[in-house]
Amino acid sequence: MKKGTIKVSVLYPSGEGKTFDMDYYSNKHVPMVGDLLGNAVIGATVENGLGGGAPGSEAPFLAMGNLYFKNIETFESSFGPNAETIMSDLPNFTNIEPIIQISEVMI
Amino acid sequence: MKKGTIKVSVLYPSGEGKTFDMDYYSNKHVPMVGDLLGNAVIGATVENGLGGGAPGSEAPFLAMGNLYFKNIETFESSFGPNAETIMSDLPNFTNIEPIIQISEVMI
Repeated sequence: MKKGTIKVSVLYPSGEGKTFDMDYYSNKHVPMVGDLLGNAVIGATVENGLGGGAPGSEAPFLAMGNLYFKNIETFESSFGPNAETIMSDLPNFTNIEPIIQISEVMI
Repeated sequence: MKKGTIKVSVLYPSGEGKTFDMDYYSNKHVPMVGDLLGNAVIGATVENGLGGGAPGSEAPFLAMGNLYFKNIETFESSFGPNAETIMSDLPNFTNIEPIIQISEVMI
């Protein structure tokens, strides 16, 4: 993705009793977010946690989702009005409170 | 990136007194890792933390770096022999102990 692009990462930390339905997330939640945000989103990725740095260790995150926006204004103007709808879908696929990170693409 | 690709994420959590030299990381560390791992790496991205989910909040991570590999075997066979060299470069750009996540690309 081009330098300067805004990347919004949603990280779902693993932990005892934590659940995450990757099927629902990939096939229902992410497409729903795409529909709501429309052209503001210029890219989306989803990753499934396999492990950590130490051999055999648990993945720190069960899943990670990333959305890319042209700039911070496009993110704010598209996400803001839809935030409640998007967040209210979370209980349908996870009991995890995600960590949200807004970043600027450097490389 | 294609479904099934392996993504290795290195996340640098923010916190009091934590420092991260993005210039060194982008221009020295990441190219060094690229040289060491060679063709095993099929993609690399770097992101600079801007903020968190709540307006005005600090970014959970000062920086994130991601490397992509065709499969887990390619990652292990290329990273393993170079892990010590790579990790020993960390004090040159940060005082943070990074979180490492190995994921499978779903979307």
